[in-house]
Amino acid sequence: MSEAVTACVLIIGNEILSGRTQDVNLHHLATTLGGWGIRIKEARVIPDIEEVIVAAVNETRRNFDYVFTTGGIGPTHDDITATCIANAFGVELYQHEEIAQRIRQRPAPEDVMINRLLMARVPTGAVLIDNPTGGPQGFAMENVYVMAGIPMVMQAMLSSLEGKLKSGPIIKSRSIRAYLGESQIAHELGAIQQTHRGLDIGSYPFYRADRYGTVLVVRGTDEGDINTAVVAIMDAVRMSGETPEELDDND
Amino acid sequence: MSEAVTACVLIIGNEILSGRTQDVNLHHLATTLGGWGIRIKEARVIPDIEEVIVAAVNETRRNFDYVFTTGGIGPTHDDITATCIANAFGVELYQHEEIAQRIRQRPAPEDVMINRLLMARVPTGAVLIDNPTGGPQGFAMENVYVMAGIPMVMQAMLSSLEGKLKSGPIIKSRSIRAYLGESQIAHELGAIQQTHRGLDIGSYPFYRADRYGTVLVVRGTDEGDINTAVVAIMDAVRMSGETPEELDDND
Repeated sequence: MSEAVTACVLIIGNEILSGRTQDVNLHHLATTLGGWGIRIKEARVIPDIEEVIVAAVNETRRNFDYVFTTGGIGPTHDDITATCIANAFGVELYQHEEIAQRIRQRPAPEDVMINRLLMARVPTGAVLIDNPTGGPQGFAMENVYVMAGIPMVMQAMLSSLEGKLKSGPIIKSRSIRAYLGESQIAHELGAIQQTHRGLDIGSYPFYRADRYGTVLVVRGTDEGDINTAVVAIMDAVRMSGETPEELDDND
Repeated sequence: MSEAVTACVLIIGNEILSGRTQDVNLHHLATTLGGWGIRIKEARVIPDIEEVIVAAVNETRRNFDYVFTTGGIGPTHDDITATCIANAFGVELYQHEEIAQRIRQRPAPEDVMINRLLMARVPTGAVLIDNPTGGPQGFAMENVYVMAGIPMVMQAMLSSLEGKLKSGPIIKSRSIRAYLGESQIAHELGAIQQTHRGLDIGSYPFYRADRYGTVLVVRGTDEGDINTAVVAIMDAVRMSGETPEELDDND
């Protein structure tokens, strides 16, 4: 079996940390990369502070197969991601003519164009990430993939990477809903996890329409193993006097 | 002026990293703590892996005034946060009678009760965080505040901390919407940031109803300074031929 491919996500932006903006990029990255066989093992939300970004990039790019960043690649003074990536790798920024050409396709007064062309700067050695929205491209520097923060643009950039990244075994997931308290099944669930160490069994309680319940999720790469665990969990739910209900995992 | 009080948020849970669940706790923590004069400077989403949690707790509790964790305090095998906090501080877990009493108020068969009482374990030296939903309490170990992952419960626990944490100057924020591209105002905005180094000026582009625009946000603690910057930004927007529009920052 091939080895797991890991990723870390760096969400760059004061607006997420201040609560001005609700991040939705992590969720999209997690489901998309998961489908490609890449597992996000950590995510960090960090402020627009150069030393913090540089340190986070240098720590995570060594510890994960891939690092994906979102945010901070626009034309204003608070868009410092490209500069930080260059500094993290100890290289210079330069104006990439392919991005500059795309930017110049949309005419603008000279002073505005100067600012727009700031988005054409990439670190020496970077490879472009296409931007199917037609805007300036993102870039990858070794294993660090630098993308926009606007969800629509980030999603477009990410889609252009499909099939271009290395991938490991894809995690499959099955979920069972049970209207019982977690404590009613905790013991059996722990025992099932013990006998299926290659799986990740989670219990996610909810409260909905005046009823307590929990969703029991089995994740792993071996479908036979997953199936055995699902059957055992369903039996345990029935033993507690409730009816297990398998959910569509695209819920 | 009092000094800034900083916080780091640790969101503990495989379900956020796998994309099963969209985190909403960070956003609530950011706006609530911000209103109390506590600034979130970093957030991390980390998996249910003991060594990762222990390392993150020990790194962040030294670098920030407060650490707030969400998730992993239920009764199942994947709820390892209390164990990890105890290990991070090098102390033992014990059953806290005040939590146990609350748990016993709701009757259950002996084997279920044993599992429920797992939620009464706290590290030696911990102080309880009330849980106004009536469920088991959270706890604080020195500057590390350990709360539930379910948003309703986390929000209740957090609300019980109001007025009990140290606070710094409160960040005020004003926002101006302008229907122009960021590049049209990037130069002036950079200059305004330069002359107001105590403020944090951000530009957040959007695309809505077929129009590009950007929201220009001024954040800081000095209202006079903020006002001067807002006036300068509005003038710059007008110079670009557009009409600035101040937003209600509770938007």
